[in-house]
Amino acid sequence: MRIERLKNELREREADGYLVTNVNNVYYFTGFMDISAATLNLIIPQNGGAVLLTQPLSYKAAVEKAANCAVKEVPFGEKMVDRLIWEVRSLGLKHLEFDSIPIAIFLKLVEGLGEVKFKPNQDLIWDLRRVKSNEEIEFLRKASELADIGVEAGIEAVKPGVREYEIAAEAEYAMRVHGSEGVAFETIVASGPRSAHPHGVCSRRVVHEGDFIIVDLGAIYSGYRSDLTRTVVVGRPSKRQSQIVNLVLEAQREALQRIRAGLKAKEADSVARDVLASGGYDKYFLHGLGHGVGLDIHEPPTLSSGSDDVLEEGNVVTVEPGIYIDGFGGVRIEDTVLVHKYGVERLTHASYYL
Amino acid sequence: MRIERLKNELREREADGYLVTNVNNVYYFTGFMDISAATLNLIIPQNGGAVLLTQPLSYKAAVEKAANCAVKEVPFGEKMVDRLIWEVRSLGLKHLEFDSIPIAIFLKLVEGLGEVKFKPNQDLIWDLRRVKSNEEIEFLRKASELADIGVEAGIEAVKPGVREYEIAAEAEYAMRVHGSEGVAFETIVASGPRSAHPHGVCSRRVVHEGDFIIVDLGAIYSGYRSDLTRTVVVGRPSKRQSQIVNLVLEAQREALQRIRAGLKAKEADSVARDVLASGGYDKYFLHGLGHGVGLDIHEPPTLSSGSDDVLEEGNVVTVEPGIYIDGFGGVRIEDTVLVHKYGVERLTHASYYL
Repeated sequence: MRIERLKNELREREADGYLVTNVNNVYYFTGFMDISAATLNLIIPQNGGAVLLTQPLSYKAAVEKAANCAVKEVPFGEKMVDRLIWEVRSLGLKHLEFDSIPIAIFLKLVEGLGEVKFKPNQDLIWDLRRVKSNEEIEFLRKASELADIGVEAGIEAVKPGVREYEIAAEAEYAMRVHGSEGVAFETIVASGPRSAHPHGVCSRRVVHEGDFIIVDLGAIYSGYRSDLTRTVVVGRPSKRQSQIVNLVLEAQREALQRIRAGLKAKEADSVARDVLASGGYDKYFLHGLGHGVGLDIHEPPTLSSGSDDVLEEGNVVTVEPGIYIDGFGGVRIEDTVLVHKYGVERLTHASYYL
Repeated sequence: MRIERLKNELREREADGYLVTNVNNVYYFTGFMDISAATLNLIIPQNGGAVLLTQPLSYKAAVEKAANCAVKEVPFGEKMVDRLIWEVRSLGLKHLEFDSIPIAIFLKLVEGLGEVKFKPNQDLIWDLRRVKSNEEIEFLRKASELADIGVEAGIEAVKPGVREYEIAAEAEYAMRVHGSEGVAFETIVASGPRSAHPHGVCSRRVVHEGDFIIVDLGAIYSGYRSDLTRTVVVGRPSKRQSQIVNLVLEAQREALQRIRAGLKAKEADSVARDVLASGGYDKYFLHGLGHGVGLDIHEPPTLSSGSDDVLEEGNVVTVEPGIYIDGFGGVRIEDTVLVHKYGVERLTHASYYL
């Protein structure tokens, strides 16, 4: 059980408790997903049962959904932080690690609990979340199928005269109407010169013949996210456009062939980077090869030249080489894949179009 | 100018500088909107020009868009926090206030800058943002028009047999295709017994004849958000349903008639609460009457019984009374309005349907 795994980690350290406040982390441990703006405090003592403090508006849903913990309501007019101080003291905790707290709250905790040591340790939970369970993989598979549907609908809408946000509208609608719980992140539709910016999001730009169009999106299913990018050219690609697209495709193919459990994440990155270098385009690859994906869109492991991560069976990661040339345009091709012992399994399956 | 107003505030305090990290706040001061996951540091010294530190992927867009500051790129391989420490030291700042920083970064700053006092003071910027400029009001007006379009499309899709998320799909598509930059928050479509939970979001539940359906959504335009709720009954409302809907409508109407600059926010809340009490339903009104809305979906001022806020000309707030009866269902009616000297102006105009 996930809470037991966390407790085992705490046992190997000095901490006698862990405070979870991030809604995705609370969901990970209890199965209860609150809205992202909710204030939740899940206290997990190393010895004893976990306690979830909720605001009144979340209480009923928490009682219904939250497993592995006692649920307590902090009534209107009572401050959550005061109740938290009381609970930590009554549990006798002396050394608490936590995922994330707003600093103003942190300072109140430190003031109210002078005898308690607090240490931020978000990595502890990130590490637990790296290897996905079979159930999590099923959710990621569904989220990936929804992304396939979305990217296909978006690319279907590409034609001269359409605006970037109209393409996004079609893509997002297709995901939503098939059951996505929202967008996994701000959808990127970056056309023409805007495609040279990896963080393009969407603008009102009108698409023209000859443009590169990058469509980068994801869906959410049972809280789990997917991440998928396709690049198309409006009309007939130029020779240079084809050359760049093929190089990015080859970089992705090579990386996908090498990725497996045990590979250093930075080696995966360098495989792709070397392919781009063979065409003289590595200096236009402005980001890392990929990242883990799960309840959050960016999680460990990180596939980049500076990463110390080693890939494990059950990691779900993106593989997304790209080339971005200022004034000319950009190409990115990305899939979400599951790392197995001897290779990868694609979770996204959209056509490459080019 | 907004940065000058911030500096004036700093001048009246001990602080000699302010660190802005929230992307919406950076946009407020510079006009540059980065993706929400970006790491940005805008340092505003009380004396001297502001400096914006960006990651490489944000740099070009920041140079193009960010006004009122010098933009500096923190290259790959260099840690943002190290550069931030260097900049704060080279500017000679001794007492820095800030909006929000992850605690792990905060602890590194404190460690690296032992001589500097740090103080969280998000309220300083919240207060600057309370009164909207004419330009901000225009953006809020557009965002509100998009919400009208969304709620109308969503309610158009209501019929027995449809699923909640399908209603959300139609509403979100209509907003997006008309130019919304995304959803202002997770769309709520709460039907039947689920309508009794104010934080309903969307489920896969199938809508039935006789259900209450709460549709609560918002759009984004130029970064500014809107917030709008309508409740409908599928088919013919029962007598009790009509009674509850009329009471909520009356509570909203009374509050809208009373709200004007100078009114205490808690009085606005009590006007609505008193109307609900007249029908014996005040105990089912589980939240405050409303909240400010702007770049964030929840901002000051807060319209609730515990609020110390006084309404000002140029505030944009929601007015959203509701009744939530466990096992029976719920009703909420909400509009986004602009506070004027002698009353309010509606920014949302969707029909009431009932």
